[in-house]
Amino acid sequence: MNILFIGDVVGSPGRKMVQEYLPKLKNKFRPHLTIVNGENAASGKGITEKIYKQMLEWGAQVITMGNHTWDKKEVFDFIDHAKYMIRPANFPENNPGKGIVYININGTEVAVINLQGRTFLPAIEDPFKKAEQLVHEARKRTPFIFVDFHAEATSEKQALGWYLDGKVSAVVGTHTHVQTADERILTKGTAYITDVGMTGPYDGILGVQKEIILRRFLTNLPARFNIDEKGRNQLNAVFVTLDKETGLATDVKRISITPDRPFLD
Amino acid sequence: MNILFIGDVVGSPGRKMVQEYLPKLKNKFRPHLTIVNGENAASGKGITEKIYKQMLEWGAQVITMGNHTWDKKEVFDFIDHAKYMIRPANFPENNPGKGIVYININGTEVAVINLQGRTFLPAIEDPFKKAEQLVHEARKRTPFIFVDFHAEATSEKQALGWYLDGKVSAVVGTHTHVQTADERILTKGTAYITDVGMTGPYDGILGVQKEIILRRFLTNLPARFNIDEKGRNQLNAVFVTLDKETGLATDVKRISITPDRPFLD
Amino acid sequence: MNILFIGDVVGSPGRKMVQEYLPKLKNKFRPHLTIVNGENAASGKGITEKIYKQMLEWGAQVITMGNHTWDKKEVFDFIDHAKYMIRPANFPENNPGKGIVYININGTEVAVINLQGRTFLPAIEDPFKKAEQLVHEARKRTPFIFVDFHAEATSEKQALGWYLDGKVSAVVGTHTHVQTADERILTKGTAYITDVGMTGPYDGILGVQKEIILRRFLTNLPARFNIDEKGRNQLNAVFVTLDKETGLATDVKRISITPDRPFLD
Amino acid sequence: MNILFIGDVVGSPGRKMVQEYLPKLKNKFRPHLTIVNGENAASGKGITEKIYKQMLEWGAQVITMGNHTWDKKEVFDFIDHAKYMIRPANFPENNPGKGIVYININGTEVAVINLQGRTFLPAIEDPFKKAEQLVHEARKRTPFIFVDFHAEATSEKQALGWYLDGKVSAVVGTHTHVQTADERILTKGTAYITDVGMTGPYDGILGVQKEIILRRFLTNLPARFNIDEKGRNQLNAVFVTLDKETGLATDVKRISITPDRPFLD
Ligand SMILES: [Fe+2]
Ligand SMILES: [Fe+2]
Ligand SMILES: [Fe+2]
Ligand SMILES: [Fe+2]
Ligand SMILES: [Fe+2]
Ligand SMILES: [Fe+2]
Ligand SMILES: [Fe+2]
Ligand SMILES: [Fe+2]
Repeated sequence: MNILFIGDVVGSPGRKMVQEYLPKLKNKFRPHLTIVNGENAASGKGITEKIYKQMLEWGAQVITMGNHTWDKKEVFDFIDHAKYMIRPANFPENNPGKGIVYININGTEVAVINLQGRTFLPAIEDPFKKAEQLVHEARKRTPFIFVDFHAEATSEKQALGWYLDGKVSAVVGTHTHVQTADERILTKGTAYITDVGMTGPYDGILGVQKEIILRRFLTNLPARFNIDEKGRNQLNAVFVTLDKETGLATDVKRISITPDRPFLD
Repeated sequence: MNILFIGDVVGSPGRKMVQEYLPKLKNKFRPHLTIVNGENAASGKGITEKIYKQMLEWGAQVITMGNHTWDKKEVFDFIDHAKYMIRPANFPENNPGKGIVYININGTEVAVINLQGRTFLPAIEDPFKKAEQLVHEARKRTPFIFVDFHAEATSEKQALGWYLDGKVSAVVGTHTHVQTADERILTKGTAYITDVGMTGPYDGILGVQKEIILRRFLTNLPARFNIDEKGRNQLNAVFVTLDKETGLATDVKRISITPDRPFLD
Repeated sequence: MNILFIGDVVGSPGRKMVQEYLPKLKNKFRPHLTIVNGENAASGKGITEKIYKQMLEWGAQVITMGNHTWDKKEVFDFIDHAKYMIRPANFPENNPGKGIVYININGTEVAVINLQGRTFLPAIEDPFKKAEQLVHEARKRTPFIFVDFHAEATSEKQALGWYLDGKVSAVVGTHTHVQTADERILTKGTAYITDVGMTGPYDGILGVQKEIILRRFLTNLPARFNIDEKGRNQLNAVFVTLDKETGLATDVKRISITPDRPFLD
Repeated sequence: MNILFIGDVVGSPGRKMVQEYLPKLKNKFRPHLTIVNGENAASGKGITEKIYKQMLEWGAQVITMGNHTWDKKEVFDFIDHAKYMIRPANFPENNPGKGIVYININGTEVAVINLQGRTFLPAIEDPFKKAEQLVHEARKRTPFIFVDFHAEATSEKQALGWYLDGKVSAVVGTHTHVQTADERILTKGTAYITDVGMTGPYDGILGVQKEIILRRFLTNLPARFNIDEKGRNQLNAVFVTLDKETGLATDVKRISITPDRPFLD
């Protein structure tokens, strides 16, 4: 079982990158399952039903979210029907949507779980406790369990990685929009990376026009965070290879397509 | 002018890695200047005079610091005499120590600047304003300016990179203890990486024994943050090559020595 | 049923004030139950068994805590035997101690609940959800329910007050160490005050020597937070009168004994 | 010299309270100068030119602001011409507007200074350093100096009070929207109160409809913060009496007009 995971897709530049490169990545890596983090897919803030469906058409099978889940109002209208979209499972109990999805890949079930950290982020339910519950439940059905941990602090991310080591196939971080170079297989067999990085503008600041963010840091004045739509783009992803018996990782590879490091077939 | 920068050295495991690998790295890369972030060099918290001097003996020429600068009480006794040690320049005005140092490398002056971010960190002076002042001052003396930006948020780090693009040789991030894979030369010629990563334990959480941090996340109870001293270790660094006229970067390379990616001569 | 609640007792100055004034307050107000917040009773940080017992001797019947619960190591040795000491109920599940206690006052049961906020404080379990569970449970036994909500943000405190309005006898805030002037009975009958204020030094900063805190703000350098032990002192409290049938409040009075406003019998 | 200061005016309910009660308060207390915090005057967020002028017509002479200064876009159009409106002086250097104003009261100059804290609020310039500069400057012109310190943390507010004790007439806190009961004259003569409290809805949460804030705490879902416009209202203020020679305080009184404590002529 091989899984491709694409990091936070930001606005139309990010969507364009998915549309253009996902077929090429599939061709090259032959993943059985492709997961995309879509929390910034609609102009940097949240997601729409149209975009959710487009992503599935372009080849994503599961869409994960994060702290921007509720940014677009229309999400409340479709999230409960969006079978393959998940949002952090440790959001407050009665929130719309769900945090885990099981998907059948040629007769094999894979569980995909989305969680969100609490360090430097809103106080929600305990991601460790929720992870334990969901993983306990999922392991009754399948050893193939993929976790997108949407979090800011490197300590919290590494902690969840070690916490789930040996119990899930992979823990990959999202949210900081910068890919880390620490991909590895932890000692009990779980693939881990602190952050997969983002997919979208290459010359902005986390995808936003750099002049806006700079002005923000220099003046602290309010500003609209426009996506840098006319510049160069990047795509960041990770590819994990899982043992077909144990569900544990046998390989984990970073993928980073940028103007400085173009895609090679 | 080629510069080697080694990321946050954590406790005795980190110091051992510097002692063992710095000569090998020098042999391989032939840097003209070696800089080491030492904010966690003494048992994970701060630095002592003995360790400062050891690091210089082992081949470091400048030591930078960060939010752990004052963790060891004795720092107040030697920081004002430690010619080649700098702490974030935007600490409050009358703090001991300094935030910029000029070092003469075979007749060429290089300025090394240490700054600290304010996002998710204590409110100190504006790092952008302070950067501008110091860079303005330094450029009167030399085009070779190296900045260690000790900060948490990826947005603030990218922002400072773009803010100084074309004006300094390199902006490298420290503090998160995880190396990022986004090393690049920005459009006007400044080498940039969001975080160089740490030097010390490989199987801990940011260098601390993982059981301690995990227990912390699970129980929120107080705990002593002991360094994982008997496990496997890593060293993370970055190497920048600068144009001898302009001081701008012509190359930037990540270096990561881990049990999974051993050092190759 | 009349209840006297004394706000955060800070160090020996605070303890002295309790010892001296609690008998006088009892004499004047005739409370059926006296509750004291003791999270800072031992040198400003946590509590010891000796101090816990002293407070009971001096006339307190229940001791509540807060974010400083675990500051003294010995708390782990006695908290599980300290029948009338509670710590925030929404601390992680397996933490020592408990967050609710029932006390029998002349044949009538009173429930005392301790909760902690999450705004500007560590991410623990949801205080609203936990409040609902505990209040639901307590109301099966008694309409006399007193809540000490240890929290920083005025919004979170008011929110819990309104959330429990009509369901509990009183919601009183602690933690900021400054008494608020907004004591009132909410529209459905619950007594409310945003913060009861502290008991201890009058001329310090939240009880700590003011020079230390000022130096901290001016230099951001580390410092030991010594309690201002030789100066003038204050005691802050609140007194609620409850309807004997409904358990709802019929009166709420602030009490503030300071050098500027001495105690009047 | 007697000064009346009215705390954060929130939306139309707050403005109505000012319009109705300011004449009555003036009649009763006979202040020489009236200052109003207007950061929430326009629907809870910022201020408009129309409202600024209305407040002056209704009897305010100086308007202070806070973290909501820039919420209404039109503020950028008029702030530089609004002679008697100030915003926190420690905002970044080139921000529009100013942080100190001198007003002539029957031939006597009074300086009014607005500052903002940094604890639990954005990292701006050091309020202590800025306070020292401005107070140093103002004292060359007048001993009558009034400071509105817009801040969250009680420690930071008490710290600034003690820092300026004996150098200014009064330090009054704003921002938490809850009046504190700790008004006093500090040992060297400065009037102090941690928070003056808000002016507007009485049954909301900090002025916002309580259902909205409660839902926010319970679900963490986004929501528009509508002001509670049809309910009961309150006005909170403080009145300081200053020595005509030294400018130091001889008296400080809290004023709180609520449905539970109606105004008495
Ligand atoms: Fe994102
Ligand atoms: Fe995010
Ligand atoms: Fe570090
Ligand atoms: Fe650090
Ligand atoms: Fe306290
Ligand atoms: Fe507390
Ligand atoms: Fe306000
Ligand atoms: Fe405010």
